[in-house]
Amino acid sequence: MEPATERATGLAVAAADAPSHWVEGERLWRRLMELAQFGATPNGGVHRLALSAEEIAARAQLVAWGTALGLAPANDAAGNLFLRLRGKEPELPPVLVGSHIDTQPSGGKFDGAYGVIAALEALEAIISAGQRPRRCVDIVAWMNEEGARFAPGMMGSAVFAGKRSLEEIKRVKDSNGVAIADALAGVLAAEQDLPRRPLGFPAEAFIEAHIEQGVVLERHGTPIGIVIGLQGKRTFLVEVVGEEAHAGTTPRSTRRDALVSAVDIIKSLEAALWDDVDTVRFTIGRLVLQPNVPSVVPGRATFSIDLRHNDTDVIRDLGDKVPDVCARARGRCEVAVTQLLYDPPLEFPPAVRARLRAAAERAGLRHMELQSPAGHDSRYLHSVCPSGMIFIPCKDGISHNEAESIKPSDAVAGVRVLADVVCELACE
Amino acid sequence: MEPATERATGLAVAAADAPSHWVEGERLWRRLMELAQFGATPNGGVHRLALSAEEIAARAQLVAWGTALGLAPANDAAGNLFLRLRGKEPELPPVLVGSHIDTQPSGGKFDGAYGVIAALEALEAIISAGQRPRRCVDIVAWMNEEGARFAPGMMGSAVFAGKRSLEEIKRVKDSNGVAIADALAGVLAAEQDLPRRPLGFPAEAFIEAHIEQGVVLERHGTPIGIVIGLQGKRTFLVEVVGEEAHAGTTPRSTRRDALVSAVDIIKSLEAALWDDVDTVRFTIGRLVLQPNVPSVVPGRATFSIDLRHNDTDVIRDLGDKVPDVCARARGRCEVAVTQLLYDPPLEFPPAVRARLRAAAERAGLRHMELQSPAGHDSRYLHSVCPSGMIFIPCKDGISHNEAESIKPSDAVAGVRVLADVVCELACE
Repeated sequence: MEPATERATGLAVAAADAPSHWVEGERLWRRLMELAQFGATPNGGVHRLALSAEEIAARAQLVAWGTALGLAPANDAAGNLFLRLRGKEPELPPVLVGSHIDTQPSGGKFDGAYGVIAALEALEAIISAGQRPRRCVDIVAWMNEEGARFAPGMMGSAVFAGKRSLEEIKRVKDSNGVAIADALAGVLAAEQDLPRRPLGFPAEAFIEAHIEQGVVLERHGTPIGIVIGLQGKRTFLVEVVGEEAHAGTTPRSTRRDALVSAVDIIKSLEAALWDDVDTVRFTIGRLVLQPNVPSVVPGRATFSIDLRHNDTDVIRDLGDKVPDVCARARGRCEVAVTQLLYDPPLEFPPAVRARLRAAAERAGLRHMELQSPAGHDSRYLHSVCPSGMIFIPCKDGISHNEAESIKPSDAVAGVRVLADVVCELACE
Repeated sequence: MEPATERATGLAVAAADAPSHWVEGERLWRRLMELAQFGATPNGGVHRLALSAEEIAARAQLVAWGTALGLAPANDAAGNLFLRLRGKEPELPPVLVGSHIDTQPSGGKFDGAYGVIAALEALEAIISAGQRPRRCVDIVAWMNEEGARFAPGMMGSAVFAGKRSLEEIKRVKDSNGVAIADALAGVLAAEQDLPRRPLGFPAEAFIEAHIEQGVVLERHGTPIGIVIGLQGKRTFLVEVVGEEAHAGTTPRSTRRDALVSAVDIIKSLEAALWDDVDTVRFTIGRLVLQPNVPSVVPGRATFSIDLRHNDTDVIRDLGDKVPDVCARARGRCEVAVTQLLYDPPLEFPPAVRARLRAAAERAGLRHMELQSPAGHDSRYLHSVCPSGMIFIPCKDGISHNEAESIKPSDAVAGVRVLADVVCELACE
């Protein structure tokens, strides 16, 4: 392969009617920075939780951008947002392209947002190239991918794909006791002028561009990653129940301290799940005590387990251990373990990956295949239609962090591949 | 000693002009139950945080009860509430009697509230007995004893005693970011009709009645505890700082997980502080992660340490170890340890204890001396004037818990001793 990093910045290799020829880096970057203003934090990050006021405002900006391009906005009952480029044969299943725009509480500018803004730029490039695809193309921003405010994540795509019911997710509450039912009603009320799509419909394909959130592409100096598949993921909720007691009067021998038990359980989980080769991803990201005041022995400790691995057998075996490990280390407290999610590893169709590779080749962009360690909405779309993902590098692999950073040239490279592949799929 | 449990219910041993003769159990119990309505929880407990709307309403009820008895209500700039029985020589330093009415988030009906309602009943008994003391007697409800909403506790009495400055405590914020300055302004605005006392004034004595919050009296079948002294207490804030990272992508080898370090620190603290004889009280009651979401490696873990012991040397040596133990177990994270409070053990004056013993004897009530394992406002009053405490039993020692329970006969016994001693002190 030629040194494509040079060529990636030029347009010489793309034919004049290829959408990749018409991708404009400055416009792409400007929209990324403008979207990042919705929920911008003082440290340069973004706080834009699912179904929040910040997200409602950001969705309105997407609708404004789409409408200006001639795209038709719509939503569905799960709060997924669509912007449609009408095809010549609109009765055919559309091509879907997009990601999400919700963020972690102290998230960055690019996780999710890149995929949606890249889709917008790809459609603008398709239009500019004078292409008029047979199929409709729907940009989509899936509802609550992050699962930060309402756990677990990827809710909009899960409901779209029929993996979870809308009624079930509507009951989920955030830490302030607000149910999705109410937060979602707020979003849909703010978008009452938009047509409402049916919840879930046939699609020709789904392509998602995303930052890698790892260091593989950066280490290889490669702007384009073709994603082989997604890590398996299991999540659990662990509830440790002891008894509240006075911190000054209650002897240790009579305490049932939920934090003491939770700490022992966590140490046991570390011993059971950590591997020497460091391929297991095991995280306790959330832990809440009750009543959580200095002078009361905690009566309850609730924590999350996030467990991921690329190997089907490994994630099955490790995840299956969790309830027993928790039970054995519970000490004087009661413990209840609930599995919230079990997504085995998956592999995207070789045909989609081949198409992405070919587009990168034609555009003269260095590319490589890699696994996705993070979960994405593509997991659920994979069961609806042939799906695939394009990764671009992010600095030091840092993500779910205000310091998230990407290079404008990599952002452009990702859209060039995306635009050509989406156009190709929509023209077939 | 005779079997005084029988005699405790009768009035035979009290002279007709002794206030203890005039204590009315039904009225006492009714006021306890009525006060417990302010912030009542469905499980029979009380949620009445310091300076909350529930506490403001409860204070208004106290003022109404006091006013009906002819007591003069007042407050001070720290939010301490007073109800004064005017003495014949009002220029003399008054006798103080009371406790607090704020509760833990899921507290009980009696912790603190008993001492204030007991004081009200004691003054009503003094009045009913036809006594007209030389000195004024001030019932007092100290501001924020619990330290649940605003840490640390015993703030009103600390400011009264000059141990902390009002300006300093005004800056303390609750978990919603509300400063004491603002919460206190709300309380004082609600009580704008009350005269404002100077902050701190000379007092002749302070007597506090309280539930034991331990099992000693119950095990001995003794209704009256004369408190020898208070356990020493040290509190710390531990802040563990790592780095937020994506739970799915970040290998363990590159994580700086604040919870992983916090768990190791907690295990090390347990090893360093727990004693076989079970006299050390070591509690981590509060632990907060940031950002505290399932799919982000925690970037920060903040937790409290509450350490108590009766022995001056032991609490000094154990507390002094804390910073070093935390530093050695911090792993890849940074750790900062801040001591918030260091109150050595203290002993109440033998003369006050002798007076309480004598009053119990005269009233024919079984009594015993015991240590207080919990902190109380008497700690700070001890530096202002001779102070003492009366304990009554509480069921199974349970406190800081909605299940807190006492026997009406014990409640009466405590007030009988309180009423006679307060009257005696005020008549001298």
